[in-house]
Amino acid sequence: MEVILGEIATAMASEADRGRVADFIPELARVDPKLFGIAVALPTGQTITSGDARVPFSIQSISKVFTLAMGLGRLGDELWMRVGREPSGLAFNSILQLEQEGGRPRNPFVNAGAIVVTDAILAANQPRELLAELLRFVRAAAGDDDIHINKRVAKSEANNAHRNWALAHMLKARNNLRNDPHRVLGAYFHQCAIEMNCVQLACAGRFLIGAPETALISVENVRHINALMMTCGHYDGSGEFACRVGLPGKSGVGGGILVVVPGRASVAIWSPGLNDQGNSALGTTAAERLARHMGWTVFS
Amino acid sequence: MEVILGEIATAMASEADRGRVADFIPELARVDPKLFGIAVALPTGQTITSGDARVPFSIQSISKVFTLAMGLGRLGDELWMRVGREPSGLAFNSILQLEQEGGRPRNPFVNAGAIVVTDAILAANQPRELLAELLRFVRAAAGDDDIHINKRVAKSEANNAHRNWALAHMLKARNNLRNDPHRVLGAYFHQCAIEMNCVQLACAGRFLIGAPETALISVENVRHINALMMTCGHYDGSGEFACRVGLPGKSGVGGGILVVVPGRASVAIWSPGLNDQGNSALGTTAAERLARHMGWTVFS
Amino acid sequence: MEVILGEIATAMASEADRGRVADFIPELARVDPKLFGIAVALPTGQTITSGDARVPFSIQSISKVFTLAMGLGRLGDELWMRVGREPSGLAFNSILQLEQEGGRPRNPFVNAGAIVVTDAILAANQPRELLAELLRFVRAAAGDDDIHINKRVAKSEANNAHRNWALAHMLKARNNLRNDPHRVLGAYFHQCAIEMNCVQLACAGRFLIGAPETALISVENVRHINALMMTCGHYDGSGEFACRVGLPGKSGVGGGILVVVPGRASVAIWSPGLNDQGNSALGTTAAERLARHMGWTVFS
Amino acid sequence: MEVILGEIATAMASEADRGRVADFIPELARVDPKLFGIAVALPTGQTITSGDARVPFSIQSISKVFTLAMGLGRLGDELWMRVGREPSGLAFNSILQLEQEGGRPRNPFVNAGAIVVTDAILAANQPRELLAELLRFVRAAAGDDDIHINKRVAKSEANNAHRNWALAHMLKARNNLRNDPHRVLGAYFHQCAIEMNCVQLACAGRFLIGAPETALISVENVRHINALMMTCGHYDGSGEFACRVGLPGKSGVGGGILVVVPGRASVAIWSPGLNDQGNSALGTTAAERLARHMGWTVFS
Repeated sequence: MEVILGEIATAMASEADRGRVADFIPELARVDPKLFGIAVALPTGQTITSGDARVPFSIQSISKVFTLAMGLGRLGDELWMRVGREPSGLAFNSILQLEQEGGRPRNPFVNAGAIVVTDAILAANQPRELLAELLRFVRAAAGDDDIHINKRVAKSEANNAHRNWALAHMLKARNNLRNDPHRVLGAYFHQCAIEMNCVQLACAGRFLIGAPETALISVENVRHINALMMTCGHYDGSGEFACRVGLPGKSGVGGGILVVVPGRASVAIWSPGLNDQGNSALGTTAAERLARHMGWTVFS
Repeated sequence: MEVILGEIATAMASEADRGRVADFIPELARVDPKLFGIAVALPTGQTITSGDARVPFSIQSISKVFTLAMGLGRLGDELWMRVGREPSGLAFNSILQLEQEGGRPRNPFVNAGAIVVTDAILAANQPRELLAELLRFVRAAAGDDDIHINKRVAKSEANNAHRNWALAHMLKARNNLRNDPHRVLGAYFHQCAIEMNCVQLACAGRFLIGAPETALISVENVRHINALMMTCGHYDGSGEFACRVGLPGKSGVGGGILVVVPGRASVAIWSPGLNDQGNSALGTTAAERLARHMGWTVFS
Repeated sequence: MEVILGEIATAMASEADRGRVADFIPELARVDPKLFGIAVALPTGQTITSGDARVPFSIQSISKVFTLAMGLGRLGDELWMRVGREPSGLAFNSILQLEQEGGRPRNPFVNAGAIVVTDAILAANQPRELLAELLRFVRAAAGDDDIHINKRVAKSEANNAHRNWALAHMLKARNNLRNDPHRVLGAYFHQCAIEMNCVQLACAGRFLIGAPETALISVENVRHINALMMTCGHYDGSGEFACRVGLPGKSGVGGGILVVVPGRASVAIWSPGLNDQGNSALGTTAAERLARHMGWTVFS
Repeated sequence: MEVILGEIATAMASEADRGRVADFIPELARVDPKLFGIAVALPTGQTITSGDARVPFSIQSISKVFTLAMGLGRLGDELWMRVGREPSGLAFNSILQLEQEGGRPRNPFVNAGAIVVTDAILAANQPRELLAELLRFVRAAAGDDDIHINKRVAKSEANNAHRNWALAHMLKARNNLRNDPHRVLGAYFHQCAIEMNCVQLACAGRFLIGAPETALISVENVRHINALMMTCGHYDGSGEFACRVGLPGKSGVGGGILVVVPGRASVAIWSPGLNDQGNSALGTTAAERLARHMGWTVFS
């Protein structure tokens, strides 16, 4: 597999059309669009990498996978009272359905849904307590304690993410937020600002493989999270990802993608340039190539 | 597996809440809600059944799987110029996105998208030629020539499906229909009126298993169709089906569901009562039980 | 006033940007965009004209004013059970609200609402009976029997207006159409194909002035129709028209506009080129100039 | 007219169905639903009143009329670059069109549009400067210096109006807010918390009559504001108000309505209970009766 990863990294390096680096968060806009990293973690713990697989990046929305795991662990199916599990058919930051559908976000991976999940696991705790616990979860999953939150990124988001403020206030207006919007978004912006490199992220994703040696949450929750990653993990580009890659995946605007190969592996890919749906452009292409080369797909 | 299927059939027989039989097509409204059938077809051709697995029913929207297979076979990726491959986030018969998104339906499984696929494969042929070819395809896939179109049902639909007429005219107004709405819907209503029993449908679905012995279309198209069944096969209930069953599936308002277990089996379940999303209520429950019992899921 | 009308006609003749002639109906697409006519009818019956005020044109949606008058005359407030009286905020031919709001169109001037009105006054009659009655009403209002339906235009519409077919089938699907879509649209396309010239239309509009000598319907219905012309008569350009002209008006895609000056006059203007909202571009400008010159506005 | 106002007040006093007092702002929720006041101000300065016409109430959205007058006075037609002048077809606090239409609110009377107007007139000033100027304008219009802002109400709104926070952040995200949401909403909540009684409000509305003796802004702006009150002043109940009352009007959730009788009078009515569209229930009925009795309508 090292040869394949190397070929992919080489091919990606020469791609001219690299998408557009997210520019709405100043801290993210500075990232070099030429960077590309890929890492595969096997259930055994073995990792195979290529490219800039040790350069940390902002995981952004990929953090929603970890908070969802925590939320399902704590609340179980009760969580679905407050957030649905259907594709939204709309952009990741859309507010329209909150207005039309009574304030229950369509799924936990659109921003509104993720904010509700964060509110649910925040409960009556302090944001810093929640963040500490989240870091513990992620570090344990990755088997690596050197994972941190970039506070400059978190602050940069808090000042610029007016869409998220709009979503949080709308959720509050619709009685689907227990905490004050400031408390919830304080936690939310920090969870998005977690930094990991591809190796760490691939390792952290192993709990979704469903193999006995990587179990961290119940088998049922593994299935649910993978199903949601498949149907909703790339927002209004989820169908495209399912067709091209054929594996559950979750993207972040930092350019990272976590891809799960059920029973086999966890893959992290990073390329900062985004496509029109806000998903890593080259990341998707690389995932598609890897899946094709390895014969990895859940659909045949 | 015979024991498991028998247990499921017995359990389903005693369910009080059986959903609501589709009443907008008079011919379908007459079906006995107590019927329940299930059949599993293995790549080898072996079938295991229980319940009313030999009673024919109207496959309705499950026919979209076969026309999509024909469409992809003929037009390849060009088909995606006219129809998308994203979940719509809306009901199966919604017209809203045709107005807002320039007349390109979100995917080939919502009604508007299926009408476009039928228009594409109809091309300049007569509807009867297309229907003959479709029957040849389905019969070959099922290995059974005793599969027919119920013309009373087709006629019943033509007179009552004003939503579909609205969709077809809207597609025509948006220049995404080559043929006249009457020609296209004439073919469409007949394709939906194909009757099969569970054994026939399970056998006909084997080409989606992806096993060498059941190959009928390209591996790539198998992957695409399964991906679309997973993300869009149950309309605005697709996320729910993915979470509960964890397998690609396609439902019809006749109460049938075709479920694909990649690499392993093709399953047909039939129970006429529908849930709020227009998918078979007990059919979903039965699929969930079977998947759980057999450990069949693509997500772990 | 003759001088003013002459000045307006001269100014309009030299305008370079004349909008776009409706091209979706072949018969209408052939009209010369350079034509411009204007006529003012006073309660006394006196008419003042300028330009091509004697050239007949297709009144199209202006016919909705006459069918609404008939509908209110026959059904009274019961009509509002089937059609609302609020601006839609959307284009004249939008289908979206039919899906979202249970099939009750927002007002009688958007296409869906006008189709419902035609269905309501059609009742159990033959379309030809209804059309004969409509012509009697319009001729009596105009005091001119030389007003006819252009059957080539009606036929041209029937073959091309797929949006209207979509609307009618959607209304039928939502149980807000008593008759078959074909019967209703047969009548509707013919009512839109009535041809009048500016003098005839201005005279026909006198019943909306509210002066005793021009009374034809109840004072209450005069008020309602004018209120609806003010708030909804120009679709999603109604607010603009209210601000610029300050008078109730109803436009048609043939380029005509009927403007009511309550208590004073009825005005017909015709210029075939349309703006983005489907309203006569120069017609609006001319109405604005006339209103300014004469001090005609209901708002000060 | 005193007799008529007295009859109306008496009739309203005995109405059982009084609508629902706004409960989303705690301070407003305490108002006695049995109160009813009405005042008519003539161009001469004479006022005729009945009922609780001297009891102050929160004018809420009626303040939008005054800020619009200021905005048009300062920016003229440039204001329409940032806010439209079409009915929205949606509720007063809807956020949907901000998402779908690039952040330009439909008109200055829906909340989003009013927030933009406040932002425009706030410019680089301090909120307190703007509020002082607004009070000067309102007091001058009313000819009464005893008009104040209720700071408890303003504070109560700031803590509870999450919808408005969502709108302001959405406007900011769409680049249609120059100031920080906190600065703009700080001013906005205070403008809504202006308290006036019916006599003061009727007097303050005289500048919209269009009579020479009450002129305060340009005739053109009088026409524009009245046109917008007619088409958008009651949100998605504007068409209904136009049909029933036939006069430009602006409502507030405090239960007040300002009605303009062009050329004749300015009317203020107050009854705290609201209908489904958020407009005073009995206020509308009273306005309809008064208009009918006096023959006041712009539509005949």
